[in-house]
Amino acid sequence: MSCVFCEIIAGRLPAAIVFEDEDFIAFLDKSPVFVGHVLVTPKVHHETLTDVPVDALGPLFTRVQSIARAVEAGLDAQGTFVAMNNRISQSVPHLHVHVVPRRKKDGLRGFFWPRTKYSGDDQMQEVAAKIRDALSA
Amino acid sequence: MSCVFCEIIAGRLPAAIVFEDEDFIAFLDKSPVFVGHVLVTPKVHHETLTDVPVDALGPLFTRVQSIARAVEAGLDAQGTFVAMNNRISQSVPHLHVHVVPRRKKDGLRGFFWPRTKYSGDDQMQEVAAKIRDALSA
Repeated sequence: MSCVFCEIIAGRLPAAIVFEDEDFIAFLDKSPVFVGHVLVTPKVHHETLTDVPVDALGPLFTRVQSIARAVEAGLDAQGTFVAMNNRISQSVPHLHVHVVPRRKKDGLRGFFWPRTKYSGDDQMQEVAAKIRDALSA
Repeated sequence: MSCVFCEIIAGRLPAAIVFEDEDFIAFLDKSPVFVGHVLVTPKVHHETLTDVPVDALGPLFTRVQSIARAVEAGLDAQGTFVAMNNRISQSVPHLHVHVVPRRKKDGLRGFFWPRTKYSGDDQMQEVAAKIRDALSA
């Protein structure tokens, strides 16, 4: 089965394209969190952030930064939400960076960032150690 | 008033640090979306993604990528949510990239990505044009 973003990149599926160069493309999400919600994606098919070659990360996030600036300026937004779902909650398995315009009182506060708590400092240190170990593995 | 992340970077406030080098630091969020939720931040105080110098973006997201990998491996997660709140919903005005471990049926699906709709193709094209214009301004 073909990838819907690869089809857009190949020009075989329509999209409201906001940016395109040799290696990246950005287009509007059809089911936006808010109007003007852009997806920025490398043209090469990589599934998640961890699959992108290191030397493509700078160019990718340089595009994301420009698009975040343009979304704010072009749509009179006060900020942006920039995010990637890697594997879980990822609807299309072709890495895409969401750039969503944000405004005060736009209704996303509260339910957007449900939070939990650590049982205490011991649990925090234990969890931090697991991540440090994995980093140096 | 001093910045709480600058205080952590200076070693004047405690944190469960998972990574540190000359230019970046990563530590556990004290109110995690899920246990193991890491914040990755440049040591230089930049407020949002659009304020980070272009040549720091590659190094920053190289660290984010390594940490996403370590969060998955170290905490047995199936994926990650990687996100920045720029200005709106940003609790600390010092850019930080959230890396949140994700697992199937972890409860974030559904309410996490509330979606809306465009009235039609005309509205999409109009919005895309505004962003394109801002990009080339």
